[in-house]
Amino acid sequence: MKIKAVAIDTHPENTAFLLREGNGYSPEQFQALRKIEIGNGEATILATLAIVDDTCLLDPGTIGLGEQAFRRLGLPEGTEVTFRQAPVPHSLEYVRRKIDGDTLDDTEIAEIIKDIAGYRYSPMEIGAFLVACAGFMTTQETLALTRAMADVGRVMRWDADIVVDKHCIGGIPGNRTSMIVVPIVAAHGLTMPKTSSRAITSPSGTADTMEVLATVDLAEDRLAEVVRKENAVLAWGGRVNLSPADDVLISVERPLRIDTFEQMAASILSKKVAAGSTHLLIDIPVGPTAKVRSKREAIRLRKLFEYLAGKLGLVLDVVFTDGSQPVGRGIGPVLEARDVMAVLRNDADAPIDLRDRALMLAGRVLEFDPAIVGGRGYARAMELLGSGAALKAMERLIDAQGRRHSLPQVGGYHHDVCSLFEGKVIAIDCHTIARIARLAGAPMDKGAGIDLMHKVGDPVRRGEVLYRIHAHSETGLAYARDLAGASSGYVVQS
Amino acid sequence: MKIKAVAIDTHPENTAFLLREGNGYSPEQFQALRKIEIGNGEATILATLAIVDDTCLLDPGTIGLGEQAFRRLGLPEGTEVTFRQAPVPHSLEYVRRKIDGDTLDDTEIAEIIKDIAGYRYSPMEIGAFLVACAGFMTTQETLALTRAMADVGRVMRWDADIVVDKHCIGGIPGNRTSMIVVPIVAAHGLTMPKTSSRAITSPSGTADTMEVLATVDLAEDRLAEVVRKENAVLAWGGRVNLSPADDVLISVERPLRIDTFEQMAASILSKKVAAGSTHLLIDIPVGPTAKVRSKREAIRLRKLFEYLAGKLGLVLDVVFTDGSQPVGRGIGPVLEARDVMAVLRNDADAPIDLRDRALMLAGRVLEFDPAIVGGRGYARAMELLGSGAALKAMERLIDAQGRRHSLPQVGGYHHDVCSLFEGKVIAIDCHTIARIARLAGAPMDKGAGIDLMHKVGDPVRRGEVLYRIHAHSETGLAYARDLAGASSGYVVQS
Repeated sequence: MKIKAVAIDTHPENTAFLLREGNGYSPEQFQALRKIEIGNGEATILATLAIVDDTCLLDPGTIGLGEQAFRRLGLPEGTEVTFRQAPVPHSLEYVRRKIDGDTLDDTEIAEIIKDIAGYRYSPMEIGAFLVACAGFMTTQETLALTRAMADVGRVMRWDADIVVDKHCIGGIPGNRTSMIVVPIVAAHGLTMPKTSSRAITSPSGTADTMEVLATVDLAEDRLAEVVRKENAVLAWGGRVNLSPADDVLISVERPLRIDTFEQMAASILSKKVAAGSTHLLIDIPVGPTAKVRSKREAIRLRKLFEYLAGKLGLVLDVVFTDGSQPVGRGIGPVLEARDVMAVLRNDADAPIDLRDRALMLAGRVLEFDPAIVGGRGYARAMELLGSGAALKAMERLIDAQGRRHSLPQVGGYHHDVCSLFEGKVIAIDCHTIARIARLAGAPMDKGAGIDLMHKVGDPVRRGEVLYRIHAHSETGLAYARDLAGASSGYVVQS
Repeated sequence: MKIKAVAIDTHPENTAFLLREGNGYSPEQFQALRKIEIGNGEATILATLAIVDDTCLLDPGTIGLGEQAFRRLGLPEGTEVTFRQAPVPHSLEYVRRKIDGDTLDDTEIAEIIKDIAGYRYSPMEIGAFLVACAGFMTTQETLALTRAMADVGRVMRWDADIVVDKHCIGGIPGNRTSMIVVPIVAAHGLTMPKTSSRAITSPSGTADTMEVLATVDLAEDRLAEVVRKENAVLAWGGRVNLSPADDVLISVERPLRIDTFEQMAASILSKKVAAGSTHLLIDIPVGPTAKVRSKREAIRLRKLFEYLAGKLGLVLDVVFTDGSQPVGRGIGPVLEARDVMAVLRNDADAPIDLRDRALMLAGRVLEFDPAIVGGRGYARAMELLGSGAALKAMERLIDAQGRRHSLPQVGGYHHDVCSLFEGKVIAIDCHTIARIARLAGAPMDKGAGIDLMHKVGDPVRRGEVLYRIHAHSETGLAYARDLAGASSGYVVQS
């Protein structure tokens, strides 16, 4: 069979196309062939087979490959390939045992993760593995999972004894501390190659917000070059393939909303190990609408991180932060970038909570430096921010990554959500605020989102603006306004 | 958008095709659109979206539908339709709660099953539901699942106070008792509309074996007509849509090999309720390579069936049978049909174990008849078989369903598997025998399979034939021979 590119995009699935007639296959054989392995000894991919009944697309003797399958196989059109029914991954036996309640050993978990990273599992099989594990993983299994996930990806190495990182487990809108911590730490001179994710279910990820100011989609050599020059980087992690298994697992975890501590810890730590970090600060926001809702849960998660980091040889510090409300004022890429730059510029109206939190975290990261006198990290962070050294480091980082010259603007449509009573703001629901900002268009529409005018504890008058919704389109604004009308996310007590 | 049929078969998925350019959609919108709902108010389907970059397939303003999607939507080409991002089924919230370890109530389970039967779940989501339930279903949840599965399908009604059925939980090759029990019971005059499945992982199902002799693919009115005339039927259940949710669930259970007692009981009983049965005999083979491996497990399963049947208003009898080895001699459609007919004809060389087992089961079913004196069922079954009344009933049934005039023959290739020692057969592995028969080509190749020459307890000489493999092709024979060479499935003790 010769391969032919077919101009159909079936992302995220690989699809192969075969004519029903003229290739000598019977209907029964096609049924068995649904999932096939295609290759020529040099390269191989797995693909789902679609049967074509029209010669417009294909001739007999050719096998069509959809755009993604063609790209992944990476062989030129016309190359002779063979195909066969995809072998069932042996590691599915272990998944079945896990479903039956067994505990798996390190090599079994490693084999599962290798097959998942090699696209040999269907979403159904990945879902089965994740659900069988949800709530039923021993710490030993979680450690094996973390190691296996780090091992199958690219592992980065740095010319530095100390490579620091910080990671927030997420869930709090507006919480863009990394974009302040990284320049402070870089200005101090520690190596901090920070890769971040884009938002999947939130209104913005660090990568989305940084992208307002600079290129974040850096190939590995570009990324290494920026770190060599500037001690740091603020890049999108998706490009450097640090944990390909995690990328596949996340594509199933998100729709199923599987979010156990074990999966979370394995996902975070595997990426840090692969990124070459030696010292890591984990930020766990705790609050009624955060991912972690009580001190007790937070301590369980901390202990899990500590156990795993110890076994993985990572120096770890964990900090619990206030997760009771959004951080800063802006929510959405452009609005958050504005807040971050205001803090770095020491503007008088910069959001105090974002500044304080970033300084505290930067101080903890700086304490990793043996040259810093114990307990002086915070003061050093204050000094670097206050002197403008952090701002300078950020400007250099933006230039090194590639400055965006036409900055995206705040959306042209807006709507104010006002208080119905006079009283005091006593709670802000992080979920609701995040959903409203997403409906308005964030993070795809960079300038969409929310500007919070009041935070918990503020007194408000009747009719006073609680927050303003920004959008790039009337439809986006209408969606967000409708949800805000049904449930503003604010609790005002009169 | 106007619909256009696209000659691509992506079974079992519905696929829709849309041009990337010219329809006014941005790449981000396409990403969100992966799963879409298409319709015109009259009919709606869900489909996965593939993006087309070539105008050979589609024009702007048209939405292409793959063969299955076009068939399922059932609207003519050119019909104006609208489409939107498929709404996320609300019942996925319940699945997530089940993953978190909650117990679900009846209405929640009913909603999940309704959405599954309506093709609103992806395989990944179905897998998540099944795995979350595997080992963690209360009897109340199992009952709710059974009821929900029966309710979403076609429910059949019969003009008889007593409608009997028997069902074997499966796993034992050659165990074709239904084809003997049904004609005996029909000859007695009880109503027994028996629908059976085709083999999915075994070398033959009752429907596959019956198909050697007669048409089994009967539409509902044809099936009802046969039952009216002959008291009984031996048809393929797949045609009459008795438990559409079960059909979807099974498509995920099989590849994941989820086979819990709860799923099994719900699957079986939902179909019996939908088929209008009032009295049911369940046959549970117990043996070291059967589905149920110990008396203790068998009792747990029996109690589950009893609890559910009681709540569903079904009169139930459960019998434990010997599941230590295959039943009869032939394994595979043609060979099994030969054994069945030999028993019905009272041939001297008919397999005794198949005959005895069928008589015992028929006796138990006949005991459901209030007119039979308690304990006389077995004698009545013997009488009906011995007199030829059962054979006559079978011949009438074959004619009523549609006799096959050119009977398929045993495959033309064969290979004998011989004993390596002199000794006694002490065990036969049901799994291995089933796998060898499948590799030989059964059930697709009707005449492929295995003829067992010796059963457990038989003395054998060195070199004596243990069994003969039949195949329609040299390749099939080679596959089966290779496996039999590696592991014959027989244990001979010298």
